[in-house]
Amino acid sequence: MEKNAEIGLDQLLHGGDYNPEQWLDSPEILKKDLELFLKAKINVITLGMFSWSFLEPEEGTYQLEWLLKIVDKMYKHGIYTILGTPSGARPQWLAKSYPEVLRVNENRERALFGSRHNHCYTSLVYRKKVYDINRLLAKEVGNHPGVLLIHLSNEYGGDCHCPLCQAKFRQWLKARYKTIEELNRRWSTAFWSHTYQSFEQVESPSPKGEMLLHALNLDWKRFVTSQTVDFARMEKQAIREGGCDKPVTANFMGDYGGLNYRKFKEVLDIASWDSYPEWHRKPEIETARETAMQHDFMRSLLKKPFLMMESSPSSTNWQEVSKLRKPGILHAASLQAIAHGSDGALYFQMRQSRGASEKLHGAVIDHYGGEDTRIFKEVCQVGDTLSDLAELRNTVQKPKAALVYDTENRWALMDAQGPRNCGLPYKETADKMYGALRKQGLDTDVIDMEDEFSDYRILMIPMLYLFRAGVENKIRRFVEHGGTAVMTFWSGVADDTDRCFLGETPGNITDVLGLRRTEIDGLYDEEENAAVPMDSNSLFLNKKYTCRNLCELVKVSSAEVLMTYERDFYKGLPVLTCNKYGKGKMYYVCADMEEGFYADLMEAVLKAEHMEKPLPFIPEGIEVTTRESGKAKYLIIQNFNRQTVKLALPQDGYKVIYGTEGEELERFSTLILKKDK
Amino acid sequence: MEKNAEIGLDQLLHGGDYNPEQWLDSPEILKKDLELFLKAKINVITLGMFSWSFLEPEEGTYQLEWLLKIVDKMYKHGIYTILGTPSGARPQWLAKSYPEVLRVNENRERALFGSRHNHCYTSLVYRKKVYDINRLLAKEVGNHPGVLLIHLSNEYGGDCHCPLCQAKFRQWLKARYKTIEELNRRWSTAFWSHTYQSFEQVESPSPKGEMLLHALNLDWKRFVTSQTVDFARMEKQAIREGGCDKPVTANFMGDYGGLNYRKFKEVLDIASWDSYPEWHRKPEIETARETAMQHDFMRSLLKKPFLMMESSPSSTNWQEVSKLRKPGILHAASLQAIAHGSDGALYFQMRQSRGASEKLHGAVIDHYGGEDTRIFKEVCQVGDTLSDLAELRNTVQKPKAALVYDTENRWALMDAQGPRNCGLPYKETADKMYGALRKQGLDTDVIDMEDEFSDYRILMIPMLYLFRAGVENKIRRFVEHGGTAVMTFWSGVADDTDRCFLGETPGNITDVLGLRRTEIDGLYDEEENAAVPMDSNSLFLNKKYTCRNLCELVKVSSAEVLMTYERDFYKGLPVLTCNKYGKGKMYYVCADMEEGFYADLMEAVLKAEHMEKPLPFIPEGIEVTTRESGKAKYLIIQNFNRQTVKLALPQDGYKVIYGTEGEELERFSTLILKKDK
Amino acid sequence: MEKNAEIGLDQLLHGGDYNPEQWLDSPEILKKDLELFLKAKINVITLGMFSWSFLEPEEGTYQLEWLLKIVDKMYKHGIYTILGTPSGARPQWLAKSYPEVLRVNENRERALFGSRHNHCYTSLVYRKKVYDINRLLAKEVGNHPGVLLIHLSNEYGGDCHCPLCQAKFRQWLKARYKTIEELNRRWSTAFWSHTYQSFEQVESPSPKGEMLLHALNLDWKRFVTSQTVDFARMEKQAIREGGCDKPVTANFMGDYGGLNYRKFKEVLDIASWDSYPEWHRKPEIETARETAMQHDFMRSLLKKPFLMMESSPSSTNWQEVSKLRKPGILHAASLQAIAHGSDGALYFQMRQSRGASEKLHGAVIDHYGGEDTRIFKEVCQVGDTLSDLAELRNTVQKPKAALVYDTENRWALMDAQGPRNCGLPYKETADKMYGALRKQGLDTDVIDMEDEFSDYRILMIPMLYLFRAGVENKIRRFVEHGGTAVMTFWSGVADDTDRCFLGETPGNITDVLGLRRTEIDGLYDEEENAAVPMDSNSLFLNKKYTCRNLCELVKVSSAEVLMTYERDFYKGLPVLTCNKYGKGKMYYVCADMEEGFYADLMEAVLKAEHMEKPLPFIPEGIEVTTRESGKAKYLIIQNFNRQTVKLALPQDGYKVIYGTEGEELERFSTLILKKDK
Repeated sequence: MEKNAEIGLDQLLHGGDYNPEQWLDSPEILKKDLELFLKAKINVITLGMFSWSFLEPEEGTYQLEWLLKIVDKMYKHGIYTILGTPSGARPQWLAKSYPEVLRVNENRERALFGSRHNHCYTSLVYRKKVYDINRLLAKEVGNHPGVLLIHLSNEYGGDCHCPLCQAKFRQWLKARYKTIEELNRRWSTAFWSHTYQSFEQVESPSPKGEMLLHALNLDWKRFVTSQTVDFARMEKQAIREGGCDKPVTANFMGDYGGLNYRKFKEVLDIASWDSYPEWHRKPEIETARETAMQHDFMRSLLKKPFLMMESSPSSTNWQEVSKLRKPGILHAASLQAIAHGSDGALYFQMRQSRGASEKLHGAVIDHYGGEDTRIFKEVCQVGDTLSDLAELRNTVQKPKAALVYDTENRWALMDAQGPRNCGLPYKETADKMYGALRKQGLDTDVIDMEDEFSDYRILMIPMLYLFRAGVENKIRRFVEHGGTAVMTFWSGVADDTDRCFLGETPGNITDVLGLRRTEIDGLYDEEENAAVPMDSNSLFLNKKYTCRNLCELVKVSSAEVLMTYERDFYKGLPVLTCNKYGKGKMYYVCADMEEGFYADLMEAVLKAEHMEKPLPFIPEGIEVTTRESGKAKYLIIQNFNRQTVKLALPQDGYKVIYGTEGEELERFSTLILKKDK
Repeated sequence: MEKNAEIGLDQLLHGGDYNPEQWLDSPEILKKDLELFLKAKINVITLGMFSWSFLEPEEGTYQLEWLLKIVDKMYKHGIYTILGTPSGARPQWLAKSYPEVLRVNENRERALFGSRHNHCYTSLVYRKKVYDINRLLAKEVGNHPGVLLIHLSNEYGGDCHCPLCQAKFRQWLKARYKTIEELNRRWSTAFWSHTYQSFEQVESPSPKGEMLLHALNLDWKRFVTSQTVDFARMEKQAIREGGCDKPVTANFMGDYGGLNYRKFKEVLDIASWDSYPEWHRKPEIETARETAMQHDFMRSLLKKPFLMMESSPSSTNWQEVSKLRKPGILHAASLQAIAHGSDGALYFQMRQSRGASEKLHGAVIDHYGGEDTRIFKEVCQVGDTLSDLAELRNTVQKPKAALVYDTENRWALMDAQGPRNCGLPYKETADKMYGALRKQGLDTDVIDMEDEFSDYRILMIPMLYLFRAGVENKIRRFVEHGGTAVMTFWSGVADDTDRCFLGETPGNITDVLGLRRTEIDGLYDEEENAAVPMDSNSLFLNKKYTCRNLCELVKVSSAEVLMTYERDFYKGLPVLTCNKYGKGKMYYVCADMEEGFYADLMEAVLKAEHMEKPLPFIPEGIEVTTRESGKAKYLIIQNFNRQTVKLALPQDGYKVIYGTEGEELERFSTLILKKDK
Repeated sequence: MEKNAEIGLDQLLHGGDYNPEQWLDSPEILKKDLELFLKAKINVITLGMFSWSFLEPEEGTYQLEWLLKIVDKMYKHGIYTILGTPSGARPQWLAKSYPEVLRVNENRERALFGSRHNHCYTSLVYRKKVYDINRLLAKEVGNHPGVLLIHLSNEYGGDCHCPLCQAKFRQWLKARYKTIEELNRRWSTAFWSHTYQSFEQVESPSPKGEMLLHALNLDWKRFVTSQTVDFARMEKQAIREGGCDKPVTANFMGDYGGLNYRKFKEVLDIASWDSYPEWHRKPEIETARETAMQHDFMRSLLKKPFLMMESSPSSTNWQEVSKLRKPGILHAASLQAIAHGSDGALYFQMRQSRGASEKLHGAVIDHYGGEDTRIFKEVCQVGDTLSDLAELRNTVQKPKAALVYDTENRWALMDAQGPRNCGLPYKETADKMYGALRKQGLDTDVIDMEDEFSDYRILMIPMLYLFRAGVENKIRRFVEHGGTAVMTFWSGVADDTDRCFLGETPGNITDVLGLRRTEIDGLYDEEENAAVPMDSNSLFLNKKYTCRNLCELVKVSSAEVLMTYERDFYKGLPVLTCNKYGKGKMYYVCADMEEGFYADLMEAVLKAEHMEKPLPFIPEGIEVTTRESGKAKYLIIQNFNRQTVKLALPQDGYKVIYGTEGEELERFSTLILKKDK
């Protein structure tokens, strides 16, 4: 690990985004803020993220004093700074002087000034301006002992279709395909006579032009990621060249589909993300599971502790409904982040702004400004807890299970036109498989197909439509060496430029599966079928489960059939199969099964493989996770039910270090056990 | 009152929009029209509104003879003219010669010629052309004794984002804020680094640029109103400089949200509007109440009789469904307008056009053209009734109750992002409060927060998010002096540039309310809560009512709690409170309550305040209104039920002057009583 | 009939679209294709349709050898070619060199290169390029003995608003109206002052300009058809001038509303269309009836056998759900096309492409590539059947019934604004009337109002809003001479430039109907009314039927009232009338009746008119059609139920030539009987 890859603070972080530049003419406000921060055991604030107009009010005229003064003052009170770079929102003067920095949309219309996150990532002018201010910030502020971490921009996202980006895209393609003939071949441009004669003819996807050449769409998304990573790399380089060696992060947006976050691995020292679940719309455990999957995704990026960089202490103001978090949820959600590997719980925002877009977003300190608010008290409670749990900092998870959830696959899958254009259940199937693992209490990595599989014992592979990076061979080796893999319908359809495999499919892996696909049926929304168990199947499955949306028809060679379709012309054809291959087993799920199917399948698989759970019995609605250090193992148990739940705790050397000892766990409360190694 | 502020005719007006220019080559049609007009007791027609192509077929070549001839001929038969200015739809030549007159939309795209209401209000060329033709019309036609009223343009609306408008907007801002620093402060531009360095950087809101700076959005809407009023002022000035002193009106579109109609007070002599309820979609009484609120809004504008300038004698052709009005509804709706203060009932249109957009819109004379149609007979019936009721002309209403329904508040409220972005119930809450007053038979003014409150005894204040013009102080004084005010949740959040109040809210008025807001919960669409009465509350409320959408949490200081929440973590917190302040009472409703709550609340309040109703008992579905002159008071009772209703009429000196005497009122029929003063 | 108007092959065609240019570097694929074609009794393939990039890879450099080679090779194996012209998708170089070929949308934005079907039909450059390559194809390939038919472009459609098209539109208008005064009069431009002073002022409809001038919209659609027909004429001319005299077709898109397909009569020798029903979403018989109506429409175009040019052997990939066709449906659908007059059953596509937009569309040969697939086996079964039924080729239908389903009427009707803007049931009413005829087993032509009516005995006329081409007189003569016509509500409203008729309506035909329309009521979606029979009505109707959406009120003069409204203020007014006129009868249906009404009405009418059915009793879900030659009559019976159905076959000389003799017909199976004349 690099010298600068860790946050230099022996505490779990507690704090969030703070915009003192909005209050520079109200010193009494700034004073009150500090007072309340200390009460809530805030130990970190993020500064500078949207402050460009205050840092460089006119081109070339820099004003960093106010920032340095606040960093310093906070530091003196034990509050550290995450220093943001301001590239997420440029000043007016920059847009006016250099219109090229304004993004061009897919319809080839250039934006006007406004909002944020809307600059061209390719523009050399924009890069230069960002480089300059980042470098200066690094130099003047970055090495202040109060600065813990550098935070690049804010929620990178979106694409730009300006002439500069078009030119860059063509260069990128040329580097990838070398000749236009190769591009034509890989992109299948013969279809509809779209053959390119030169790279100069390529244009980014557009509703006004080409939207149906899937390989172009896929490569454009790859290029956008590549260009954004390159921008982030430039931002980091400016920091380093400014002489600051602090670790660098950038905040992600959970399941945001616009970028392949995996590609940021090379740039970031710390992964972080902004967590805004829609609490109380569904049963809390469901919301908790969805959030957990994002936490696990972020932790799996760098395989080390990450940061929950933003979360709302109360409601948001941009979701359909600004729902208040019920008492206890803020605490539970903060500890859930820690449970899954975050080394802190941070908020957007420390103090509500008086005006503009997010003035009604929840905050630690609201417009009322007092400390006698429910929210502020709950924040203090989180502060106390995190302060007590400092030993969890820098502990890790070592999952035996992994879910393959791949962004490029998602892009290709969702764009492919068919077998359902009114919705393919990729996220839904991943959620079900992830949930099945988590209900058994298995710590789970969420990885993509470029990752290494050999560390795991169980691999869940939903709808892996696109095969790339030799994933077939990795799966083959994984199973051969004794792993258990579960793959679903609509896998192995296309190669890395979205060309369909010829011959048997799933491509290059039918021997491992012991079957091949023959057809796939799309079901209308109102249709369903069911899977019924075979007599005496090897997993002892004995229930019937419904399926919807997609029913794949397969022809078995060597696989055992465990369940079959109940109805339609494919009645009796396999729904669930298992093929022994090498020392392992390869399961295949042919249809979009209901959630309960995956839960029961995973329970049966664990039993068959004699794998242990962290708790012998895990009631509904309970989340169990582990973190460990070289010296100890921690077991974190959270109750996301609305009622108290009885628990049987492990007897083998664990002692309670947080929460109320006993057999009952109250609603939304957390219990943490520790066992020395 | 100015000399020219009244319509010089001792009758209630009956007539409507007439377009003889469509039939100039069919004299037999024009002849037939006159014949039928006389049969239907038509005494007024509106001419010239979309006739520019016929008045000035080529630039500078005017042709007014045909118009003058019709005005004159009609006058000779006792039919008066409302003279329209033609600015609502310009001729082709004007757009072709001067493209600047074509409107530019928020995406900065200039319109092509077509449709109507789509000119730039700022263009000097357009203003000049309108000025010239208005002046000429005033001079050549306006002083004809047959001309009663000048009608400016048609349904002013929409905005233009062209460079001319941008420049004007910046001037308007400069006049308002003086310095760019002040604008930055008031608009909270520090958020997302949007600080302007000069007024030249400001651009109107656009999906391609800035949409999330609420103060910009609000000021843009204010500017659009201001510029439209200025355009109307110019139109009026042309009339006056043409030597015509007749009163001036412009037709409004009911609850249209694009303009703040209040600002037209200074230009118009008579208020008027176009009434197109969707009859028979809901129970007729509900449609009647919604229409009544618009009538009351229009009457409250100038606090004197207005005109229902358009209404359909049959169906419209632009609503989703062209529903026929059932027999009796035309008559009832026409008299309802009179009941609420209109001095006439006018139609769009007198004769159906053969082609183009509105050829299937209802008309007094349809394509068939005969007088043996149901519609024509019903129009004749209205004509007879209005002719009998001439004495109602120029009588007024003197309401003791008012509803504060404020356009600028609506703009800010709906744009604020939160606490629900899938819909805030402003109109709905206003409707419920208005309906509660009307069910008690209270005549009601519909006013905005710039109006004077001291004339009323009861003030209903739904969701007054934005406080401006010292409204807090006016409310304070109103209550102090003995008034009863009912304010709801989500009031007093922001100031006049949509900056949130700091400290306790509702801003600057928590002492009058005896409470302060702590939080507000957004409910998902499928959620609800309920309000339950406190034992022995001072209003003797004893029912339970459901609430939805928004539940505000308050902390009471001096107020009495009358009802509390039934469920959720805020169970037991107040839903309805009453604070005695000075000689009056200030009620506060914390949640979005069901309709029945407001009705029962108002009944209880009237009882508590010992206020009288115009009828001791008002059955469901009955509308009661009063008009009065110096000499007499009129009581108008309408039955909007589908069945006959029994009534107990007042015994104290009232006599029936219209309708069938007796205790029963037939469906859709009207009874008018008169009592001399 | 012209010499070149027939396909020169004594077989029913079996085959489809084939794109060998996608596989030119995979000779083993091409070899396999041929092998499988022969197995499936494929006798025709369509080549060249999207091959421009391969035929002319650079401007002026032609490469036809690969095509000729394939034509020749196939021919030697008994497989014929339908030669496509490549105008449906142009090469990149053409768009880059001549941007004028790119289409401009209604918002006046020029498209980028991409997709297909998006060229300007007016561009002389595009026409020249298409002419040149068509001519060369005709010359070099067209006369090969293997070429059966020339196929122009692919699915003509869409419109272009570029300056070239605007200019052409103005010319077209000038030719139509001669003077601008006449255009103003016919278009009713006096409305809203839209009077044109010259043709140069006219612009095509646009959301940015004019959308509400109905006559402009209608004439624009007419112009688009005219210009597209002209383009097709040019394409054909190039073929002829290249020296090729083979018959010419172009594939239509069923109920596509963008073009008036009738106007292609003059250009095409053979009608053809692409049939993609959404099987299994509704009961199969409903889908079959909708498809049958399209088949009948296509056959009625030229009143001779047509071709089902495309159909999917499996699923599509562009519908919402890619539903597999259940076993038997491919066979049934293929024979249904033959039953209604197609001389073949062709597929899109012979081999699935590996990439791009349609890679997941069903194909005879899929990516797997084997012959052991369900689909391939079903295709072989179709091949066997068609090969057995060669004698059906060139036989015809001679319907006694016709449905008037008119494209220009649809355009005007749907654009008219009112009496319902949330949906007018034109297609639905036509479907119900067509279904009523088909349930009686009547062969049916689907014609427009420009067609001749005198050959029929029954005429169904749904919602004929627009009267043109003297249709009133043709109906009058038809009835006078003994025909039975059924016309519905909302007929005879407007003339051919969508100007409403003045006076009594339906226009110029109230004497034949014995009534006139007085009003029309639009019903809200949730409303309904009902029709109740008159005692002792002449058709002996005795049930009650619901109606929705539209209820017309009429005043009867001479007509007999058969049914009346049950409710609302028009209770007791007529819903169904019959007027004897000359030797015939004219029925009028006043309301949007439920499907069962039309079925019962038609049964009663047949009884009253003593007309025979092809089978004495036709069970639910059974389709019966006839084809005949000079020598024999064929009766085709298909079971679209999901269960076996009992049938009573005719005894009079028919013998079974296809299918299992006996009284039972299995699900999705077909029986063909033959009787010599």
